[in-house]
Amino acid sequence: MNPRFQYRPPDFKVSPLSGAPDARFEAAPAAGVLPERFFSTTNLPTYVKVDGVWRRPRLPRMDCVVYRDGSDLVVTEPRKIPKGGRVAVGVMEDGSEGIYVHAEGFLGGRHSANEFGFMQTEVSRERPVDYAVLAQLLGEEKQRGGKIIWVVGPALVHARARQDMIWFIRNGYVGALLGGNAVAVHDLEAAISGTTLGMSSTGEGVEGGHAMHMRAINTVRRVGSIANAVQAGLVKDGIMHALVTHDVPFVLAGSIRDDGPLPGVLTDTLAAQDAMRAFTSQATFAVFVATALHAIAVGNMLPAFVDGSGDELRPLTTICVDQTEFVVTKLRDRGTHQAYGVVTNAQDFMHVLRFYVERWEQAQTPASVSR
Amino acid sequence: MNPRFQYRPPDFKVSPLSGAPDARFEAAPAAGVLPERFFSTTNLPTYVKVDGVWRRPRLPRMDCVVYRDGSDLVVTEPRKIPKGGRVAVGVMEDGSEGIYVHAEGFLGGRHSANEFGFMQTEVSRERPVDYAVLAQLLGEEKQRGGKIIWVVGPALVHARARQDMIWFIRNGYVGALLGGNAVAVHDLEAAISGTTLGMSSTGEGVEGGHAMHMRAINTVRRVGSIANAVQAGLVKDGIMHALVTHDVPFVLAGSIRDDGPLPGVLTDTLAAQDAMRAFTSQATFAVFVATALHAIAVGNMLPAFVDGSGDELRPLTTICVDQTEFVVTKLRDRGTHQAYGVVTNAQDFMHVLRFYVERWEQAQTPASVSR
Amino acid sequence: MNPRFQYRPPDFKVSPLSGAPDARFEAAPAAGVLPERFFSTTNLPTYVKVDGVWRRPRLPRMDCVVYRDGSDLVVTEPRKIPKGGRVAVGVMEDGSEGIYVHAEGFLGGRHSANEFGFMQTEVSRERPVDYAVLAQLLGEEKQRGGKIIWVVGPALVHARARQDMIWFIRNGYVGALLGGNAVAVHDLEAAISGTTLGMSSTGEGVEGGHAMHMRAINTVRRVGSIANAVQAGLVKDGIMHALVTHDVPFVLAGSIRDDGPLPGVLTDTLAAQDAMRAFTSQATFAVFVATALHAIAVGNMLPAFVDGSGDELRPLTTICVDQTEFVVTKLRDRGTHQAYGVVTNAQDFMHVLRFYVERWEQAQTPASVSR
Amino acid sequence: MNPRFQYRPPDFKVSPLSGAPDARFEAAPAAGVLPERFFSTTNLPTYVKVDGVWRRPRLPRMDCVVYRDGSDLVVTEPRKIPKGGRVAVGVMEDGSEGIYVHAEGFLGGRHSANEFGFMQTEVSRERPVDYAVLAQLLGEEKQRGGKIIWVVGPALVHARARQDMIWFIRNGYVGALLGGNAVAVHDLEAAISGTTLGMSSTGEGVEGGHAMHMRAINTVRRVGSIANAVQAGLVKDGIMHALVTHDVPFVLAGSIRDDGPLPGVLTDTLAAQDAMRAFTSQATFAVFVATALHAIAVGNMLPAFVDGSGDELRPLTTICVDQTEFVVTKLRDRGTHQAYGVVTNAQDFMHVLRFYVERWEQAQTPASVSR
Repeated sequence: MNPRFQYRPPDFKVSPLSGAPDARFEAAPAAGVLPERFFSTTNLPTYVKVDGVWRRPRLPRMDCVVYRDGSDLVVTEPRKIPKGGRVAVGVMEDGSEGIYVHAEGFLGGRHSANEFGFMQTEVSRERPVDYAVLAQLLGEEKQRGGKIIWVVGPALVHARARQDMIWFIRNGYVGALLGGNAVAVHDLEAAISGTTLGMSSTGEGVEGGHAMHMRAINTVRRVGSIANAVQAGLVKDGIMHALVTHDVPFVLAGSIRDDGPLPGVLTDTLAAQDAMRAFTSQATFAVFVATALHAIAVGNMLPAFVDGSGDELRPLTTICVDQTEFVVTKLRDRGTHQAYGVVTNAQDFMHVLRFYVERWEQAQTPASVSR
Repeated sequence: MNPRFQYRPPDFKVSPLSGAPDARFEAAPAAGVLPERFFSTTNLPTYVKVDGVWRRPRLPRMDCVVYRDGSDLVVTEPRKIPKGGRVAVGVMEDGSEGIYVHAEGFLGGRHSANEFGFMQTEVSRERPVDYAVLAQLLGEEKQRGGKIIWVVGPALVHARARQDMIWFIRNGYVGALLGGNAVAVHDLEAAISGTTLGMSSTGEGVEGGHAMHMRAINTVRRVGSIANAVQAGLVKDGIMHALVTHDVPFVLAGSIRDDGPLPGVLTDTLAAQDAMRAFTSQATFAVFVATALHAIAVGNMLPAFVDGSGDELRPLTTICVDQTEFVVTKLRDRGTHQAYGVVTNAQDFMHVLRFYVERWEQAQTPASVSR
Repeated sequence: MNPRFQYRPPDFKVSPLSGAPDARFEAAPAAGVLPERFFSTTNLPTYVKVDGVWRRPRLPRMDCVVYRDGSDLVVTEPRKIPKGGRVAVGVMEDGSEGIYVHAEGFLGGRHSANEFGFMQTEVSRERPVDYAVLAQLLGEEKQRGGKIIWVVGPALVHARARQDMIWFIRNGYVGALLGGNAVAVHDLEAAISGTTLGMSSTGEGVEGGHAMHMRAINTVRRVGSIANAVQAGLVKDGIMHALVTHDVPFVLAGSIRDDGPLPGVLTDTLAAQDAMRAFTSQATFAVFVATALHAIAVGNMLPAFVDGSGDELRPLTTICVDQTEFVVTKLRDRGTHQAYGVVTNAQDFMHVLRFYVERWEQAQTPASVSR
Repeated sequence: MNPRFQYRPPDFKVSPLSGAPDARFEAAPAAGVLPERFFSTTNLPTYVKVDGVWRRPRLPRMDCVVYRDGSDLVVTEPRKIPKGGRVAVGVMEDGSEGIYVHAEGFLGGRHSANEFGFMQTEVSRERPVDYAVLAQLLGEEKQRGGKIIWVVGPALVHARARQDMIWFIRNGYVGALLGGNAVAVHDLEAAISGTTLGMSSTGEGVEGGHAMHMRAINTVRRVGSIANAVQAGLVKDGIMHALVTHDVPFVLAGSIRDDGPLPGVLTDTLAAQDAMRAFTSQATFAVFVATALHAIAVGNMLPAFVDGSGDELRPLTTICVDQTEFVVTKLRDRGTHQAYGVVTNAQDFMHVLRFYVERWEQAQTPASVSR
């Protein structure tokens, strides 16, 4: 009933692909330094011709290189290339240097009535958001056992969408949560003292409020980890509590503006990138809420599609929620073309989405149960 | 349990008010032209001393004058003053010229734990919106038979919050609807052709879409009025349909950007202002959604309080919903200090507010009914 | 050196245009009511086949009809059609019903390095604004005696870009100014009392400030017109003063939020539309600054091109300046595709543009002068 | 002629300060873990009573603690406190626990006609920006040998304000530049290939553009440092070139979204914070342009005033430029109350500010020179 996107690999038997040369590889002159004409990757399906055979390196992401690791072709960050490592070179993406980026396969299909076409509508607060479709996509992704990653900013907590986020965690819609120190700090401050940035849940300042988040950080540092704070009963509810008690993994990346930071925050940004990419490489669905920095960071790491076995690829649904069109436009300008923008308040988004997901779940229930 | 705001009139027996002179009135030199030192009104409780007695002219609004019409004191627009009309003069608001603006009574009470204090929080997408409180305020206003006016922009229809707006109309939460030609055009286009500005409800353009709103306008012009279009069965659903079938009055003010316009649109802006003020003078609650122009227009006309009999005044709850902080800030900068800002998408606001109002209604139901 | 856009009319000798039927015209069933299948116009070059000949009605604008007035073909507002008037019908724009909208001629040329291609770049605060090109386009338009219309919002005055606007008026860059009551009120308030909305030029509130604009309005009403206020020496500087003393025409359209209004404001919105269209039909260049309402109103009225004699058409350069991407995007979404967006503060735009125009003027000066 | 702000320390001889107890210090239970009731600092002048004497620890910043290092009182980050370190405790800021935060001294003086009063106006695109005052403040700061720090985001380069930034560096207005990897990458990409994010200076995409910034990064990595790239002649102009050739120090902090990163970027966020605080502790003036992340990070570190010898304090002028009110409001909500917001496009800000600073410089020139 809902026709799905069907990826078709390019036809390598017809010209000009049929006559393309093998890709060339050159040695890195030093560790983390690339040969001059290195090929810079995108997040689209990419084919590299080696020994006369077109191969598709898995898990492409933007701004990386194709590295020949033994007989493997690996898409990896330039900084990880060893001295002498063999790196694909070329500046053309049309196959004429043995490398072919299959943009048509994903960005072309505007006219078909499929979910990806739906994903390509313009971003505007004036466009209606079809929460029913979003809820269905999310629900089906859970059903098929996909990995749904959430990338969230502190406004999610600040704006009291916290209960809804907890609901999604408890009900299996969160495969991993990626964020920064602040989102965890605000959530833990709320759990420990009932405030966020010293403001009560009704938006009023409280006495001594500006220090509340520092006290929350100190409490957690004292027991050594967020998990310990949960187990010790110091943190009895909230997003971090739900993640810990439901064994949902999370990555907290450090940033220049962090207070504390909390134990477990990865203060080295390269270590944090690696930790995040471990999750993005398994992701089959992504939701970005109220975070420009992390949305763009994770957008950079994500393939535009879910890599199946063989040639079965499907689009990697990516939803980006922000108060302004700007963040979504920026994300797409930087290559995450598949991002579907929802221009609204994070609190309201979470509330309405949850409402629609609950309704979708009820509609899935067999008749016998609802009797 | 929920302590209410209690207005206390100023104490006229103590200095300096006790020693204030009578207010002076001077004749207008020409129709619609004021005496030089005319007193310019605000939307706050205002007292004028006449023959040694402090009187409070009813229904103050911004940017008007106090006019002595026989023995009455009337707050009216300068353009309506006849030649020779007696107009209060003075530039001080502290009583020293016989006129006293009681700002303290409304803007002062920051520290008491009342609903109006709540209303004075700063506007920011980061502040949590307490929909439960908004729903309660709205529900109680309906219960006490207040006049709730809605001032809406076309984004309300465009963003498919239409069903929710209809729900509020049907359930008695709308005493009058004020808007422009566009909101009605979009709604009628949706009723007649299923599109808004040529876009389907899922946000896709349709063939010949750019003319759809012109065809809707023509359809209504052909039958002479919106009410006729409803009665003729040409318009079977939507906001205008709900207003007509539930006898809820509406005012559509013309603007320079109108197509058509629809029959019934008041193309003269002064006539439109008069028509709107007829409703704002009775209003006890106001909701502005997604309209800068009309929000500021109506904000200008509204008293900051509901005028009861005697000295019982209560704040006139004014909710302003917009995608950005800017509109709300602008509204408040122009004197509508009481406006409570909700920074979100109009569609989501309507959805969540309705959800909370439904829940509030259920909580009001006596136990016997829910059995 | 700077290759110009060259419009090429469609080739009517090739299929399918060569075999197109004549356009059909039907009688309006009542005054201001159109035949069911009326053709709704755009702002692009449009050809209508009459008696076997393709004709191009002049001055197309959006949301109008093609009316056969004797042997003339006139693009006019539906409300002006008399009962029985002959109106072109058809819903196809490809010539198959005798009407052809030549979208390719203007919207197609993305790949040529011309000014219009330049005009089609996306709107974003991140895109650099080439003020040198804007200044050159403006300067050349003045040189060739074009009609440059400015459509301005009150922020232009509020933000103290007033001196720069005056400079453009004095130096012949303003053919007409279109705006609302507010822009004139703020400007006259500044001229009379040195404040705007009661705020001094350094942004501080002054005593009794909220009434200052009402006093300015009253002053002008007393003498009967803005021109009289200038001649009487009550208004000695400012935008309105410059317009009056340089005989530059202006239209002030009324709106629902007006105070006063000032004498000369057209309070009937249809009269105001007609007055504005008298200028837009002669316009060869348009600059919209800080006004959503008027930008969209005037955008609706403007052809996308300057109508020359014969088939010489050139794009009608339209610059839209606003603090956010939203207004420009909205303007383009509503059909003013040619609008070039500048996302910045109105004050800074005016300042920088003037600086570049002054520099461009100096570069035009013959060498002998600069010695 | 321009009356300056005069800080007056509190009067410790009057009650209740005169009777205040000594502050209490408690031992940190572990390294980086604070005693339960630690005192959390602000950026305002703070006095701590030790042995009956009120002392003022230098360089307060937000979210730190007062640490007793031998006889010194040091404001430091919690993570730096050793096990057993003596940390001031108390939750009151009014002296009743021996700690007094002198908010009045800085935040109170609204009514005096001084530069800091000017700085406290609300943030709005509608408020006029007095560039003449900003230019004077900047010029005088240079004259008195102050340390002016600039905190900049990539939009500064992207928007071609680059030439203006270079001008400020060359003319001694930049004491240090703080930013992230991206600002340097964009600037170096522009220097090496003439594009920013693959877009030419007129805003058009170039062939292979998406890889341009990766090639720029690789070029710099190959030679080992930005300074080497300048010295090797690979980078011949731009912001980084100007910093290197004029010996202006800079700090580039890593973030989760970095490509590369460039050599010299501090990938550990705590190391980056320490490097930045080394400059903020000497800063006497701060300009934040187009960066939410770094503005808030640096805002957190800055005292609200410049610490002179003795009790001579003056406000630390902090200018925050952004396209929206939101960033400035957020910065102030997080405690950088002294920030003066300029709501505009970064490119235009730089252009106009430079123009006014040049004019200010000319006005300073002695008459003899201008003859």
